[in-house]
Amino acid sequence: MEVFSAAERAALYRVIESRRDVRAFRSDPIDAETLGRILGAAHHAPSVGLMQPWNFIVIGDAATKSRVKGLFQAQNAVAVANYNGDRADLYASLKLEGLEEAPLNLCVTCDRTRSGPHVLGRNTVVDTDLYSTCCAIQNLWLAARVEGVGVGWVSILDYDDLRPILGIPATVVPVAYLCIGYPRKFLDEPELQRRGWATRLPLEQIVFQERWGAPADESR
Amino acid sequence: MEVFSAAERAALYRVIESRRDVRAFRSDPIDAETLGRILGAAHHAPSVGLMQPWNFIVIGDAATKSRVKGLFQAQNAVAVANYNGDRADLYASLKLEGLEEAPLNLCVTCDRTRSGPHVLGRNTVVDTDLYSTCCAIQNLWLAARVEGVGVGWVSILDYDDLRPILGIPATVVPVAYLCIGYPRKFLDEPELQRRGWATRLPLEQIVFQERWGAPADESR
Repeated sequence: MEVFSAAERAALYRVIESRRDVRAFRSDPIDAETLGRILGAAHHAPSVGLMQPWNFIVIGDAATKSRVKGLFQAQNAVAVANYNGDRADLYASLKLEGLEEAPLNLCVTCDRTRSGPHVLGRNTVVDTDLYSTCCAIQNLWLAARVEGVGVGWVSILDYDDLRPILGIPATVVPVAYLCIGYPRKFLDEPELQRRGWATRLPLEQIVFQERWGAPADESR
Repeated sequence: MEVFSAAERAALYRVIESRRDVRAFRSDPIDAETLGRILGAAHHAPSVGLMQPWNFIVIGDAATKSRVKGLFQAQNAVAVANYNGDRADLYASLKLEGLEEAPLNLCVTCDRTRSGPHVLGRNTVVDTDLYSTCCAIQNLWLAARVEGVGVGWVSILDYDDLRPILGIPATVVPVAYLCIGYPRKFLDEPELQRRGWATRLPLEQIVFQERWGAPADESR
């Protein structure tokens, strides 16, 4: 049974705390070994019934990136209309993707039919396959960080529009479309916090004891 | 900009590869500082628009655990009916939860109304809040592993039945119900693989290049 040293424990927490959503990339490529380690980490995520519902589509083609950039622009034009005044100006000033500058894009999908009709542990909550896929994405994000590689999740896309571009079958859900590359920098705090868009909640406010809304024990 | 040493990189990969879904627990408690670090790691997950939609309900009460065990038994009786013959025998022999023996249970929820009606990056894909919550769960799982603490995700539950037990409001989704405690052991491989239920897929089979179904470059 593997045991982790104090230094190794500290390293994990430092990786978790210094991981960022990256939107500004250098153009130098990610070598195949590094990418392989990052994808291998994703593949070692937990999955319901060991279903491993994920696939990873690695995209380097400029034409594909450009088409996805167009999808982003369409949805971002819709999203910005939700804001007014200073908030609209701030929104418009945020860099929300690095699709074309990142050397790689990566589409992470969830095959809802993997492992056949009955997946152990997925009889009641069918979305556990999507949940597993998200666990894989977080593993990928942390592995990238420790390699000095930045990852940005572009959620301002109509993901169904990715299907014809990438040839994704109807039974497969595109869960994440990521930009991957060496970052211009890893910021000390989330961009949205640095720019005054949002702030981190105090941990004690979101931890309850025994029931929803009940503050955690003082002794904790 | 923080850089990680080779030893720190190796530690992260070792944590990721030795993390297990744990169903057999010792009874000794998790101290408050350790639990706080584990929950803090979860809280440092990425979230769409820095929404931080998660809450963590820490449960130590035996009566609550017992009620949830009842929910598991009900759904597991439904699930086992999907299998026949040897597969049914194998299913029945698997230990799929440690709800009552684990010193703690933890319900991780997603508040779909957190941060108001417009969340940056959540205008098109509304389930990104659920995805963020799953990223937090994976952070939690890895932090627990490095602390020597085991986590098991009990997905064989009707999660809506948790609402009255834990007082969870209608706008909040219970995403995960976890058992947490020191494990009897961390297995070298997933229990379902060890028992012949499923095996890990080869990585090259699930990585595509440019489009769905296209094998990754040989050069990778």
